[in-house]
Amino acid sequence: MAANQEEVKLLGVVGSPFVCRVQIALKLKGIEYKFLEENMKNKSELLLKYNPVHKKVPVLVHNEKPISESLVILEYIDETWKQDPILPTDPYQRALARFWSKFIDDKVVSAAWKAVFTVDEKEREKGVEESHEALEILENELKDKKFFGGDEFGFVDISAVFIAFWIPIVQEVAGLKLLTSQKFPKLYKWSQEFVTHPVIKEVLPPRDPLFAFFKELYENLAASK
Amino acid sequence: MAANQEEVKLLGVVGSPFVCRVQIALKLKGIEYKFLEENMKNKSELLLKYNPVHKKVPVLVHNEKPISESLVILEYIDETWKQDPILPTDPYQRALARFWSKFIDDKVVSAAWKAVFTVDEKEREKGVEESHEALEILENELKDKKFFGGDEFGFVDISAVFIAFWIPIVQEVAGLKLLTSQKFPKLYKWSQEFVTHPVIKEVLPPRDPLFAFFKELYENLAASK
Repeated sequence: MAANQEEVKLLGVVGSPFVCRVQIALKLKGIEYKFLEENMKNKSELLLKYNPVHKKVPVLVHNEKPISESLVILEYIDETWKQDPILPTDPYQRALARFWSKFIDDKVVSAAWKAVFTVDEKEREKGVEESHEALEILENELKDKKFFGGDEFGFVDISAVFIAFWIPIVQEVAGLKLLTSQKFPKLYKWSQEFVTHPVIKEVLPPRDPLFAFFKELYENLAASK
Repeated sequence: MAANQEEVKLLGVVGSPFVCRVQIALKLKGIEYKFLEENMKNKSELLLKYNPVHKKVPVLVHNEKPISESLVILEYIDETWKQDPILPTDPYQRALARFWSKFIDDKVVSAAWKAVFTVDEKEREKGVEESHEALEILENELKDKKFFGGDEFGFVDISAVFIAFWIPIVQEVAGLKLLTSQKFPKLYKWSQEFVTHPVIKEVLPPRDPLFAFFKELYENLAASK
């Protein structure tokens, strides 16, 4: 391959918040790429070759070099294509951005998942409670900023796409109130700003099929009680 | 504080592999700091102030700015003090280093902990099995390199201090074989190189009290069956 040629592939599934993170970063930076849709029930040889450790998406493949783990991919994209930086330049601000992204992965995603897709009622309630606690912390962190990144969205906002787009869907599926304008006015306002941002809007998966997918998952689970 | 003055504090406990990571990085780079020993059963006002979200150690405080999460701290240290870099300069190699450090946190630490400190026999066996699987993957990744970082230790080696120093202690406590020279010769050799490295040796906590601490923990757990 000629040195001036770039080949960028993304192994993913439509509807994954982790894949969506990578799509946002690539879109923001204007990187052309080939999206290779995976079937997670019948994983491709390519996925097993490129991510033999976890066998999960997303995998970014840049000139045949594979990178896994969505936050690791975001950092790689930011270091490789410098335009429209995702992370701030100041080391302390970078550390805070990494801290909050990890917080979202460790505390929000698992709690919201538990709140919606757990059969056991007590576990479910615990999931709701933990979601509220984690979202409250983010509400306080956001303060009166438009985005976590400031006037423009950045690393934390991209990591938080799960909160802005996925939580509203799954809470409706389960008839729960996790992120509402009453409970978390700042975070709610942020979520609206974020999902209507021109870059983000173009990358988000279509809502209706995703809603139907989660609805079916939820009903199957409820039926298995 | 004058601009040329640096005040570096580390809130930690002796015997924590996560705190030790930060100590290694500071030692490598020759940064003077004040170690503030925390009592995790009676957390200080300072810890609650500096890490209100997780209330955990390590917390690095640089000129009154607190940073939490050991891997986030390592990146901050590497970006702030450039001498003796911990991460490689090439974006792809940096991505791999971040990937493997996350792998150690997600797959090795929890599995080894489960193998040693779980009461339920089945869970314990699962912990042993998962530990072996994860260590096998690292054995293959290490190949014939002296360190994960190459000729000198780096980000992944520092993250893996838990494997080099803590696993040998806790496996002896529990009479288990997790990391042995027979099972994982390369990883075992690496662990020997690592813990005897002049920089590392100076920073590791004393073995005997740590062994006694885990032994007591283990026996209390066994007695509670």
